[in-house]
Amino acid sequence: MSMIRRSSAEFLGTFWLVFGGCGSAVLAAAFPQVGIGLLGVSLAFGLTVLTMAYSIGHISGCHLNPAVTVGLWAGGRFPAKDILPYVLAQLVGAFAAALVLYVIATGKADYSLAVNGLAANGYEAHSPGQYSITSALMIELVLTFFFVLVILGSTDRRAPAGFAPLAIGMALVLIHLISIPVTNTSVNPARSTGPALVVGGWALQQLWLFWLAPLAGGLAGGLAYRALAEEAPAKPAITGQAESST
Amino acid sequence: MSMIRRSSAEFLGTFWLVFGGCGSAVLAAAFPQVGIGLLGVSLAFGLTVLTMAYSIGHISGCHLNPAVTVGLWAGGRFPAKDILPYVLAQLVGAFAAALVLYVIATGKADYSLAVNGLAANGYEAHSPGQYSITSALMIELVLTFFFVLVILGSTDRRAPAGFAPLAIGMALVLIHLISIPVTNTSVNPARSTGPALVVGGWALQQLWLFWLAPLAGGLAGGLAYRALAEEAPAKPAITGQAESST
Amino acid sequence: MSMIRRSSAEFLGTFWLVFGGCGSAVLAAAFPQVGIGLLGVSLAFGLTVLTMAYSIGHISGCHLNPAVTVGLWAGGRFPAKDILPYVLAQLVGAFAAALVLYVIATGKADYSLAVNGLAANGYEAHSPGQYSITSALMIELVLTFFFVLVILGSTDRRAPAGFAPLAIGMALVLIHLISIPVTNTSVNPARSTGPALVVGGWALQQLWLFWLAPLAGGLAGGLAYRALAEEAPAKPAITGQAESST
Amino acid sequence: MSMIRRSSAEFLGTFWLVFGGCGSAVLAAAFPQVGIGLLGVSLAFGLTVLTMAYSIGHISGCHLNPAVTVGLWAGGRFPAKDILPYVLAQLVGAFAAALVLYVIATGKADYSLAVNGLAANGYEAHSPGQYSITSALMIELVLTFFFVLVILGSTDRRAPAGFAPLAIGMALVLIHLISIPVTNTSVNPARSTGPALVVGGWALQQLWLFWLAPLAGGLAGGLAYRALAEEAPAKPAITGQAESST
Repeated sequence: MSMIRRSSAEFLGTFWLVFGGCGSAVLAAAFPQVGIGLLGVSLAFGLTVLTMAYSIGHISGCHLNPAVTVGLWAGGRFPAKDILPYVLAQLVGAFAAALVLYVIATGKADYSLAVNGLAANGYEAHSPGQYSITSALMIELVLTFFFVLVILGSTDRRAPAGFAPLAIGMALVLIHLISIPVTNTSVNPARSTGPALVVGGWALQQLWLFWLAPLAGGLAGGLAYRALAEEAPAKPAITGQAESST
Repeated sequence: MSMIRRSSAEFLGTFWLVFGGCGSAVLAAAFPQVGIGLLGVSLAFGLTVLTMAYSIGHISGCHLNPAVTVGLWAGGRFPAKDILPYVLAQLVGAFAAALVLYVIATGKADYSLAVNGLAANGYEAHSPGQYSITSALMIELVLTFFFVLVILGSTDRRAPAGFAPLAIGMALVLIHLISIPVTNTSVNPARSTGPALVVGGWALQQLWLFWLAPLAGGLAGGLAYRALAEEAPAKPAITGQAESST
Repeated sequence: MSMIRRSSAEFLGTFWLVFGGCGSAVLAAAFPQVGIGLLGVSLAFGLTVLTMAYSIGHISGCHLNPAVTVGLWAGGRFPAKDILPYVLAQLVGAFAAALVLYVIATGKADYSLAVNGLAANGYEAHSPGQYSITSALMIELVLTFFFVLVILGSTDRRAPAGFAPLAIGMALVLIHLISIPVTNTSVNPARSTGPALVVGGWALQQLWLFWLAPLAGGLAGGLAYRALAEEAPAKPAITGQAESST
Repeated sequence: MSMIRRSSAEFLGTFWLVFGGCGSAVLAAAFPQVGIGLLGVSLAFGLTVLTMAYSIGHISGCHLNPAVTVGLWAGGRFPAKDILPYVLAQLVGAFAAALVLYVIATGKADYSLAVNGLAANGYEAHSPGQYSITSALMIELVLTFFFVLVILGSTDRRAPAGFAPLAIGMALVLIHLISIPVTNTSVNPARSTGPALVVGGWALQQLWLFWLAPLAGGLAGGLAYRALAEEAPAKPAITGQAESST
C-alpha cells in the first residue's frame, strides 16, 4: 500500500477520533437531563478507534496517535522512516476535525469557546477536577504505557485473530473512564494538539505535557511488551491483517 | 436469494431500527430518575443494526438505510437496479414501525404526540439543542460519510471476517453519541421519514434535509473508500457472507 | 449430551439470567446519586445471556426462556419432545434465583418486598410507567418476535460463526432499553414467573400476559424466519456448536 | 513460557485491573453532574479483564485473581504447583496499583483517604448500601461461582474460539452491575487486598470475607463445571491460545 493511501487513512481516522470523541464531549456530554456524561464520552472515544481499526486497519494499521506510532516502533513493529509521515497525517486530521467541530458547535446560539471549550486537555486549573501536574504526568504515563501494551499484545500473532480492534477500542474506553477528571484524557498527542490549536492560550501552553507523557509511556510500553513476549511476533499492529511497512 | 425475500428482510430490519431506536427514545429516555438518556438511545440505535446485521446480513446485506444503499452502489458493491426495491422496503418498514410505536406510546395516559413527539429529526427550533440549519447539514453530511466508510471498510475482504456487524453497529452508537443534540440524528432518510409521516407538520417540512445530507454524505463516503482502498474488493457489504446481488 | 446435563445447564443459565437481571434492578438501579438506572439493568439482562451462551451453549444451546425454546421448535431447530424438560428446568432456575435474590435484598435494613419489589413484570397500575394492557401485549409480542428472529438468524449456518451469543445478548439489551417502562420487560415467561412466585398477589394475577404474549411472539418469530430464510439451516441454535437434540 | 514471564504478565494484568477498576471508582464515579456512576465503574472493571485477556492471555492465561487461579485448578485446567507464584504476582500487582492510584488521587486538593476511600470492599457499615454480612457472603459466593463457570465454559474447546475474553470481561461487568451496592464487589481476593493495605483499619479487618467467599465460590464453580461438562476439555483457560502450564 502506498504511503499516500496509508497517510490518507491516518488523516481520516484521526479526524474521526477527534471529531467523535471531542464532538460527543462538546455537543452531548452535558445536555440537560439526558446528557451522555463522561461515560458516553468515554464510549465515544473508544468507538472511534474500534470502528476505524476494523475499517482502515488493513490500509494503514490504524494508529491515529503519535504515541502509538512511536510505541509500535519501540515494540519492533513499525519502521522508523514511516514515523514522520504518519504523525503529520495524524496532526492534520486532528486539526481539521477540531475546526469542523468548532463550526458546528457555534451553530448553537449560546455556545462560547471560552466557556464551553473544545475538550482540550489540561492540568491544574485546566484539569476538569483541578488535579495537579504530577497527577497529570503520572496518569498519562501509566495509561499510555498500558494502551501500547494492549495494542502490541492483542495484535501478537499468538492472540485470537480479528479481536484486536475490539480490545484496543475497549482499552481506550477504559482509559477515559479512569482519567477524564484528571486531564480530560489525552494518551494521544495528536488528539491534544487539534483542539489546542483552535482554543489557543492555556491549551497551547499546557500542550507539552500531552506530548511528553504519552510519548514516554508509549515508548516504555513498546519496550516492555517486547521484553515480556519473548519472541518478536511477525503479525503487524492493530488488525493483524494490515501491512504496517511499505 | 429472491428480491421478495431480500426486500422482506429490509422491511423487517428497518422496522426494528425505527421501533428500537425511536422506541427507546420515546418510551425510556426521559423516564423519571432512572431514564436511559441519550446514551441509552445511542446504544439502542446501534444495537438494532448490530443485531440485524448478524441475523439478516446473509439474506439482504442488511442496509436498512437508503444512504447506505446508495453509498454501497457508489462504492461499487451494489447494483443500481436493486436500489429502488430496497429503498421502498426500508420506507415501508420505517413507517410501519412508527405507527406501531405510536399506538404503544398512547397507552400511557399522559402521552401526547405534540409534546412527547416520536423522535423525529429536526433543525433550528426542532433541533433538540436548537442548532442551526448549517450545523445540521454539516454534521449529517460528515457522519454519513464516515458511516459508509466504516461499512465499506469493515466489509472489505482484507478486514477481519465476521466483525463488520459489530463495527457498523458501534459506528451508529458513536454517531448518535455525537449528534442527537444537533438533529436527533438521522444519517438515514428512512429512519427520518417513518416518524415524520406520523408527526406531520414541521417534521415533514424539514424532512428534505434528512434526505439531502445523508444521501450526499453516503455517496461521498462510497467514492472516498473506493479511491482509498486501491482495489475493488469482491466481498459484499455488511456481513461479508451475504449475497448483495440477485 | 444427556438431558440431565442439558437441563442442569438450563437451570444454571436461567438462574443467572434472573439473578443478574432482576438483581441489578433490585440492588443497584436506584442507588442514590450513582445508581445504574434502566440502562444498567438493560445491560445486565443482556450480559447474562451473552455470558451464558458462550459458556453453556455447547451443552444445552442456552435457551433460558420458554419462548425461545418454543420459537426454536417453530423454526425447525428443536425437537418437540425436549420442550417440557427444558421449560421445567428454566422455571426452577428462575424461582431459585428469585429466592436467593430476595434473601440478599433483605440484608439491607430498609428493604421491603412491598415497596422495592423484585423486578416482577406488570401492566396498568403495575407497569413502571402505567402503560395499558394493550401496550403491554403489543410490545411483548413484537419484541419476542424479533428476539427469536435474531436468535434464528444469527445461528443460521450462513451467518458469521461464533457471533450469535453477542448478537443475542445485545438483542436482549436493546429489548430492555425499549420496554422496561412499559412492562418491566419480560419476553421470557420463566423470568416473569420466578419473581412473581415470591411477590405473589398482583404479580401472579398478571402473569398470564407474560406467558401469552412472549409465547405467541416467539412462535410467530420462529415461523417467520423459517419462511424468510428459504432453506432449513442445519446449524443448531445459540452457539452454532451446541447439539440441540439428544 | 517461563514462570518469570508468566508472573510478570500476572503482575501487570492485576495492576491494570485494580488501577482501572478502583481508579474509575475513585476518580470518576461521583464527578459532579457528569460522573460515570456505578455503571461506568462496572464497565471499567470488566474492560480491564477483556483488554488484558486479549493481550496477555497467550502469556499467562490472564487470571489476575486468586479465586480464578484456584477455580481453574479445581476445574482441572491449572497445575497446583503454579498457584503460589501466580497468587503472589497478583497480590504485588494489586498493591502497586493501589499505591499509584493513591498518589494520583491526592493530586486533587480536597481528596481524603478517610472520606473518599480507595474503593476497598466492605460489609455492614462499610457496605456502600449497608448490607449485612450474610448478604455479603452470599452474593460474593454466588457471583464468584458463576464467574469461574463462565471462564471454564467459554474457554472450553467446544465453545467458539477467541470469544472467551469478551465473555469473561462482560461477566465481570455484569457482576459489578449487580453487587457494587452490597460489597463494592470483590469476587477477587487480590483486588480486595491491594486497596485494603493502603486504607488499613476496617478494610483489613473485613478482608477475610473477601478471601473466604470468592475462594469458596471459585472452587465450587470449578468443580461444578467439571461435573457439568462431561469431558475434561484440553483447551486452556481465558484465551484458548495460551499455555497455562509451564
